[in-house]
Amino acid sequence: MPLEIPEVVINRLPVYARALSELEARGESVVSSQALGELLDVTPAQIRKDLSYFGRFGKQGRGYNVPGLLTKLREILGIDRQWRVCLVGVGRLGQAIAEYGGFGPQGFVVVAAFDASGAVVGTRLGDVVVRHADSLDEFLKANRVDIGIVAVPANEAQRVVDRLVASGIHAILNYAPIMAHVPRDVVIRHIDPVLAMQSMTFYISRHVPPGE
Amino acid sequence: MPLEIPEVVINRLPVYARALSELEARGESVVSSQALGELLDVTPAQIRKDLSYFGRFGKQGRGYNVPGLLTKLREILGIDRQWRVCLVGVGRLGQAIAEYGGFGPQGFVVVAAFDASGAVVGTRLGDVVVRHADSLDEFLKANRVDIGIVAVPANEAQRVVDRLVASGIHAILNYAPIMAHVPRDVVIRHIDPVLAMQSMTFYISRHVPPGE
Repeated sequence: MPLEIPEVVINRLPVYARALSELEARGESVVSSQALGELLDVTPAQIRKDLSYFGRFGKQGRGYNVPGLLTKLREILGIDRQWRVCLVGVGRLGQAIAEYGGFGPQGFVVVAAFDASGAVVGTRLGDVVVRHADSLDEFLKANRVDIGIVAVPANEAQRVVDRLVASGIHAILNYAPIMAHVPRDVVIRHIDPVLAMQSMTFYISRHVPPGE
Repeated sequence: MPLEIPEVVINRLPVYARALSELEARGESVVSSQALGELLDVTPAQIRKDLSYFGRFGKQGRGYNVPGLLTKLREILGIDRQWRVCLVGVGRLGQAIAEYGGFGPQGFVVVAAFDASGAVVGTRLGDVVVRHADSLDEFLKANRVDIGIVAVPANEAQRVVDRLVASGIHAILNYAPIMAHVPRDVVIRHIDPVLAMQSMTFYISRHVPPGE
């Protein structure tokens, strides 16, 4: 597999995988790029081009084999296994994240949660008991954790990110409203509703649709 | 301004605006594309190219005027004014969204919240009292709302999106884990932590950094 796959392509693969997984659940065994594109509001050409980075899928005029392509995408994305996640910051947002039911079924297991506030340390959160933030580094030394979720206030976020990185975490999901810095061998995604809203107001303030 | 500005460029502008706003708060009046790029982990060339869609900013070797460029970006993005937002779905996630302090200071004012559950209808949420979901369409007919936030379960999300669109909303922030469909004249952004995690596991399962 070539390594120069654009990040935007990688970011679209989970969307394809989710659609295929829904099709599979409905018992559909074949889907055309046309039909898949309609499900996702993308062009069939984009789907074919994105998938072409990873090999040849589907047969001309016959469409894609749903379970086959899904298996392949899950393997490519590395979502065919369990990933261990820790959560740092257990305020209201952190609690909503921890109790969000969508992670577990997708293989993302929250194995630990940390907070600096005595009000939440020791309380139960889903399947874990909240630990004191001071014990974060020690915990990460003793336990495998693949992904760190950062849900602390903006002014603490970079410091938490630095600690996660120093402890060997290579993937961070950041909910704090800052563009936290990470070294080049760490991948970070920002969940930032304000930035998302600010990218929509461009269109609604002009009354132009996106992509025109 | 040409209308064929790539959506990825529009999506980066709020990030630039936020960095400039931090620089302004620190009293800095000039910034080079180099320094701005370092702040945001992007290349100076990308910043210059992105901004070139909107005119000529900065002087060769002199950098950008911070307050000037910020004002211009805020105007381009339409974030130089107040936007009226309604929230549909007041479960734990909806509550976290409503009480998130980051919207108001950026001009996004939650003017109404809706839920179908008797347990929350009538309760106070930030500055608003939760209304029954049945009154959504009527409310939108009688009141200007610019952006709808959808925080209902997956199986209800498309129906809520359809109702928002039918009531004239042109921008939707969707927290439900589905790729909701909207007509071409409506802009939608998805806040989906599972998809974000699934786009990171590609890299960590291969031990390759993003962008390589």
